[in-house]
Amino acid sequence: MITRNECLDWDQHDPLKNFKNDFALPKDVIYLDGNSLGARPKKSLTLAEQVITQEWGQDLINSWNKADWWGLPTRVGDKIATLIGAAAGETVVSDSTTVNLFKVLSAAVQIQADSDAQRKVIIAERDAFPTDIYIIEGYIDLIQKGYVLKLIDSVAELESTLKHNDVAVVVLSHVNYRTGYFYDMADINRLVHQHGGLLIWDLCHSVGAVPMDLKKTDSDFAIGCTYKYLNGGPGSPALLWVNPKHQNQFKQPLSGWWGHQKPFDMAQSYTPAEGIRRYLCGTQPILSMSLIEAGVDIFLASDMDQIRSKSLKLTDLFIDLMQQECADHEFELITPTDYRHRGSHVSFRHTHGYAIIQALIARGVIGDYREPEVLRFGVTPLYIGYCDIWDAVQQIKQVMQHEEWKAPQYQIRGQVT
Amino acid sequence: MITRNECLDWDQHDPLKNFKNDFALPKDVIYLDGNSLGARPKKSLTLAEQVITQEWGQDLINSWNKADWWGLPTRVGDKIATLIGAAAGETVVSDSTTVNLFKVLSAAVQIQADSDAQRKVIIAERDAFPTDIYIIEGYIDLIQKGYVLKLIDSVAELESTLKHNDVAVVVLSHVNYRTGYFYDMADINRLVHQHGGLLIWDLCHSVGAVPMDLKKTDSDFAIGCTYKYLNGGPGSPALLWVNPKHQNQFKQPLSGWWGHQKPFDMAQSYTPAEGIRRYLCGTQPILSMSLIEAGVDIFLASDMDQIRSKSLKLTDLFIDLMQQECADHEFELITPTDYRHRGSHVSFRHTHGYAIIQALIARGVIGDYREPEVLRFGVTPLYIGYCDIWDAVQQIKQVMQHEEWKAPQYQIRGQVT
Repeated sequence: MITRNECLDWDQHDPLKNFKNDFALPKDVIYLDGNSLGARPKKSLTLAEQVITQEWGQDLINSWNKADWWGLPTRVGDKIATLIGAAAGETVVSDSTTVNLFKVLSAAVQIQADSDAQRKVIIAERDAFPTDIYIIEGYIDLIQKGYVLKLIDSVAELESTLKHNDVAVVVLSHVNYRTGYFYDMADINRLVHQHGGLLIWDLCHSVGAVPMDLKKTDSDFAIGCTYKYLNGGPGSPALLWVNPKHQNQFKQPLSGWWGHQKPFDMAQSYTPAEGIRRYLCGTQPILSMSLIEAGVDIFLASDMDQIRSKSLKLTDLFIDLMQQECADHEFELITPTDYRHRGSHVSFRHTHGYAIIQALIARGVIGDYREPEVLRFGVTPLYIGYCDIWDAVQQIKQVMQHEEWKAPQYQIRGQVT
Repeated sequence: MITRNECLDWDQHDPLKNFKNDFALPKDVIYLDGNSLGARPKKSLTLAEQVITQEWGQDLINSWNKADWWGLPTRVGDKIATLIGAAAGETVVSDSTTVNLFKVLSAAVQIQADSDAQRKVIIAERDAFPTDIYIIEGYIDLIQKGYVLKLIDSVAELESTLKHNDVAVVVLSHVNYRTGYFYDMADINRLVHQHGGLLIWDLCHSVGAVPMDLKKTDSDFAIGCTYKYLNGGPGSPALLWVNPKHQNQFKQPLSGWWGHQKPFDMAQSYTPAEGIRRYLCGTQPILSMSLIEAGVDIFLASDMDQIRSKSLKLTDLFIDLMQQECADHEFELITPTDYRHRGSHVSFRHTHGYAIIQALIARGVIGDYREPEVLRFGVTPLYIGYCDIWDAVQQIKQVMQHEEWKAPQYQIRGQVT
């Protein structure tokens, strides 16, 4: 039997406990949705005031140089690089994850077409966050050269599909957005490369949540969100990393002036910048991009191994407490129990999942719902403690025991994000 | 002879004079670069505080519904619609102008390919803002089906190129970013349509600067910036308009989940939304997008005909005063004197253009420099008055008379935006 006092004790001895002070969280809320929208770093407000009043209002266009707005995509990129195992100059922040996938997908397909034109299969997971599949569909429709999208359901199926030696590119979520399944990056890179494929990692649910080393594991391309675990603010621009061995091989088709070798020469034809800047496109939303630094700087002051260690203890605790307190209520755990394959959120399937989440939100426990029937709880070690998990599970127990989820207002399906 | 007292009198009788109070401008600066980065609306700060502390910090993911973050692209789009002659539901704000050009270019080419596959010429202006040309190049490289980019230098050349009846799409800047040349939208739409082409208007230097009616003039597609004349903030997301007759004809290839018919069903294949939302792609930078409303709301309280009328008086004044005060200094006017073809900025060519602009900025007169040898001065009637123009020209006169531009520090070429 785990007790709340034990949780309290773990919180008191938690080496990360003070980081919670860096975030502005609402009172009376247990926020278990930082994997959807990260909490607000306190510094984001003063940073925004600085960008708005001084950089925009006072310095005006001079800020492109003075505040180095022009350098933001690589400056923020280089900070994130330390969390993903990249060297400086390999990462940019720009546009959205969806747009960035289009860029690297185009690059990867073209690199393959140049070396082996017979490879015309693109693999994605059936259970990927759908925008990844949609972008591949849109890309294939546009290029119309017999490319085929194959959806897989397991690593075994990935392996059997690769064996046909016609796969150009594989797109995988490093951590699955629904189940929290976490791929071994090194193993999968090796498998895909053995069969001549290139791999794009979608890091949306893993960057800032699990340690990784893109370079050491010989990854090819990676994209991901900055507004989830990195706490960059709603819809903040996305990251894009390319292994230097691929960077200059292909001119990605969203060839806007920010990716030009000499953007201010106003040249009449496109020459891509050397290196990662060629993956930029048009002018970036400076305010939304600036605030990412407030989020990432907190990570840089912390320790990724401690974050991972605490994340696993928190998800273990959640799983154990659900067994201890809510075993009667038919929650089916769909997150792997194996540490090697567990990200930083815990998901359960339940027939009344949608209504249960609504009832929990009304009680101040914010998780989210994903089709079909999945309750999802994100664990963010920088601002979530052991007692938070204890208290959240107690609230779930209350909702179930009192059948609160049966209330009519919780049955109405609205938009969820 | 025009005198400063006359300018003072015009300012006193200016029906738009009070709008200057809605902007936070630095003291001792005459800001003639609102066509590059619009000035800061005072309300932008309180709006940002609201989005950061309340919507993000307190309401967290609930803001997707409660603050209607999800609806921002069309909500802001519908406000801008009133400035461009569009009905509600025809305009979105999303991504960058560059990315939006890729979307509508793909749509326009595909519509043409479906009706006449022989049309494989895409026309752009040699003097377009280069990103427009770069995107067409990248698009053609990607689709590789014999499409050809033809660059034109004049309306006469546009007409002679169209006569071959092989033009699919024409991309034109409504107002040219360097010279300020302003096309007659109705005339050009008619010309292009007569020869079977479709037209994309780049409104970056015209939206908020000149009146227009996209619908009444039977335009096809339009894209444009919100951070110039609309004062949306540095790099704020861009607008995209599609004539309803074309909207549902093509699934644009940046088919992200925000453009899906049912984005929250997590469907495994892409079905585009009906209407303009199909031109959305990934998650948007909410903070940068929110602040656009502070800028556009000022326009909605003003009158576009009064803005146009004052803009022409201000550019007239600038041109006349340069003749009156600086005739000896070899400035060559490159902006059309004909009202029908003049946007809202005035440009001069001068051999020492770069150094002169630097010397002017040091004196607090902020214009900008564009290759080759062009000094550019934007006129923004909501916060620039007649005396500002008088004073700016006097400063130019001082810089020239004292040969201040010869100072070594003004010769060093840095980045300009």
